[in-house]
Amino acid sequence: MRRGSNLHALGGFNQTVVLDTIRRTPAGLSRVEIAEQTGLSAQTVSNVSRRLLDAGVIREAGIRNLGVGKPRTILQLDPSGYYAIGVHIDPAVITYVLLNIEGHVLAHTTTRTPSAADPGVVITEMQDSVEAIIAAAGIDRQRVLGVGIASPGPIDMNRGVVLDPPLLSNWHGVALRDELERATGLFVLLEKDVTAAAVGELWKSTGADHDDFLFFYYGTGVGVGLVLGREVVRGPTQNAGDAGHIVVDPTGPLCRCGRRGCLGDAISPVTIVNSAVERGLIEMPGETPDTSAIDAGFSQVAALAHVGNPAAIELLDEVARYMAEAIVTIVNLLDLNRVVFGGPYWERVADLLLDRVPAVINRSTALVTLRPVTVTSSTIGADVAAVGAACLVLDATLSPRSATLFISS
Amino acid sequence: MRRGSNLHALGGFNQTVVLDTIRRTPAGLSRVEIAEQTGLSAQTVSNVSRRLLDAGVIREAGIRNLGVGKPRTILQLDPSGYYAIGVHIDPAVITYVLLNIEGHVLAHTTTRTPSAADPGVVITEMQDSVEAIIAAAGIDRQRVLGVGIASPGPIDMNRGVVLDPPLLSNWHGVALRDELERATGLFVLLEKDVTAAAVGELWKSTGADHDDFLFFYYGTGVGVGLVLGREVVRGPTQNAGDAGHIVVDPTGPLCRCGRRGCLGDAISPVTIVNSAVERGLIEMPGETPDTSAIDAGFSQVAALAHVGNPAAIELLDEVARYMAEAIVTIVNLLDLNRVVFGGPYWERVADLLLDRVPAVINRSTALVTLRPVTVTSSTIGADVAAVGAACLVLDATLSPRSATLFISS
Repeated sequence: MRRGSNLHALGGFNQTVVLDTIRRTPAGLSRVEIAEQTGLSAQTVSNVSRRLLDAGVIREAGIRNLGVGKPRTILQLDPSGYYAIGVHIDPAVITYVLLNIEGHVLAHTTTRTPSAADPGVVITEMQDSVEAIIAAAGIDRQRVLGVGIASPGPIDMNRGVVLDPPLLSNWHGVALRDELERATGLFVLLEKDVTAAAVGELWKSTGADHDDFLFFYYGTGVGVGLVLGREVVRGPTQNAGDAGHIVVDPTGPLCRCGRRGCLGDAISPVTIVNSAVERGLIEMPGETPDTSAIDAGFSQVAALAHVGNPAAIELLDEVARYMAEAIVTIVNLLDLNRVVFGGPYWERVADLLLDRVPAVINRSTALVTLRPVTVTSSTIGADVAAVGAACLVLDATLSPRSATLFISS
Repeated sequence: MRRGSNLHALGGFNQTVVLDTIRRTPAGLSRVEIAEQTGLSAQTVSNVSRRLLDAGVIREAGIRNLGVGKPRTILQLDPSGYYAIGVHIDPAVITYVLLNIEGHVLAHTTTRTPSAADPGVVITEMQDSVEAIIAAAGIDRQRVLGVGIASPGPIDMNRGVVLDPPLLSNWHGVALRDELERATGLFVLLEKDVTAAAVGELWKSTGADHDDFLFFYYGTGVGVGLVLGREVVRGPTQNAGDAGHIVVDPTGPLCRCGRRGCLGDAISPVTIVNSAVERGLIEMPGETPDTSAIDAGFSQVAALAHVGNPAAIELLDEVARYMAEAIVTIVNLLDLNRVVFGGPYWERVADLLLDRVPAVINRSTALVTLRPVTVTSSTIGADVAAVGAACLVLDATLSPRSATLFISS
């Protein structure tokens, strides 16, 4: 059942619209320009600006004199106003970032992902890292809005629990959100990793061509974040974005799901490294290399491809083809024409894959969309999921979401 | 760039919220109950109701006396208030329906789809059918809100043009919306068929378990409509919902896209009928049967399956498996757990496939979602796309859409 809207909900929504307009114009803009861009009245913009100034979220940053009319005071985000922490749990590594309200990364640390079966150990390590990054940045702890955690799915949204991520074999039902909230006293949010990455990209993007896009996350695991009409698709249980079992190579190896050539398997770093070993391209010590050996092996393959090694290039050609197959399926379904890639493994081969993936997509005869599909790298880089998790905290406070327009039950 | 919201936009939105609440309660409800369900103030509900009564959209339908407090006047939709016409263009047949404001079908006709290359002939035939259905229903033409057309994609949303649907080989860039608007003088909407079908299902549905679902349309062509958070996913060019090239049978026949075993091919009525002929199950006159021969052949296969013919059952087992494969891919991506099937071919085998598809989906080891996937038949039946197209016209006037909350540019 749809709820109505009223002045209270409207006020909150318009405040986030004004703030969003200001943060998308780093050079700052005047109240008159905000009114023009948002369609809001001068009086509404004036009232909202006053509230934001009083809260220390924005600041007045000089006067702009246009020659005609009254000189206009420029409004800008106050970079020392508020901060947010983002945490990205990858099966190999946990990344911590501290962002200011402009979304700039002020501090960055990484730790090895604890493999301990005891969730208490995980929470304690994360708590220490959160405190360390606040101390290192030298900021006022009172000004930290909260901690966003990007975790491999599936997650239990209501309980803030990481369920049984396939690549985190010792994690079973870890109540990450509440435990970290209790330990740090900070507001904590939990989000699926690919969704967080899409949020980060959306936060940094401007222009109508970023209203709808597919974020392709290439990490230890593979997944997609979906943005439709400038809002991230989460799904009813917040677990949207699983593309791992799209069949991309019908003659490929058997997946644990019983299908052959599933995307998740076909392009996973483990598969690339194993193929490279089989083809005599690189050598791996031992039978089942651990995550850091895989990481090193993938870097070796990337380095070989960069110097033109034909066998390494062939491997990346396959990866490009598999990625393109899955992307065609998804853009057909959702009528998208923009793909943004990111994640730690993407970074190392981005130039080579950007030369290949768009061409394979756009010459596919299975592609239904009327417009060519554009492919770019994330503007954020390897930390996109951690940055996105921090953006979620900023987002929860600052971004216009139509859901906030409805009167709450 | 997000636009703000103001009182004008708010008023229009709240009007559609009130109307939506009334139409979802066929027995009618009081202003007090509307206020409770929507969160709107008594004054707002009172003002909005007055406007809707004056416009003849709703009516007062008696007094309910609860024993305590003031007796309450019951508000209901006025079934003789307004009407809408829905048209569904299938490669084989064009269906016309006339709906009252409650969404009840008052009249229904079908014609063979004109295969003429001349769009003028198509428009004239459609104009005649529209006038005939209004005349047959004996309603006041002034009270027809408009005509919604559900067409195979791709469509050009901005120009209201049907582009080059793969299964309508003589249709190239037919400016259906403007031409039919000119010919009839009625407001005309153009929408992709699967999207219209999802709109129809959404219009008829109540309950939170219908907030998010996948509508699987099984007609001459196959496609999906997607509903997320009670809104239909259209995509930036309004062409969302193409699932035809999801690989469901890696060893299957070559699709025109170069892949093997694409969904659209694997379960199309043509494929089923050809397989049935090859397996000696039925006979077909001639080498390339036309659409009505395929239609008849499919009905024969369905009839054989219903009496337990093992070869016919085997064919439907395959169809169920292919449908399930595609559905798993889509529900994984969008975190859905409800599938609604509809369309003319579905109707004939619905009972048999409802016995099979849900089980195949839910025992798939590729299924990521945490909740079992529920499968049902459309509550509307074979006319779902035509009814949906008419609902779109009602929808454009009556349904709450958050997009209307923003100040227009």
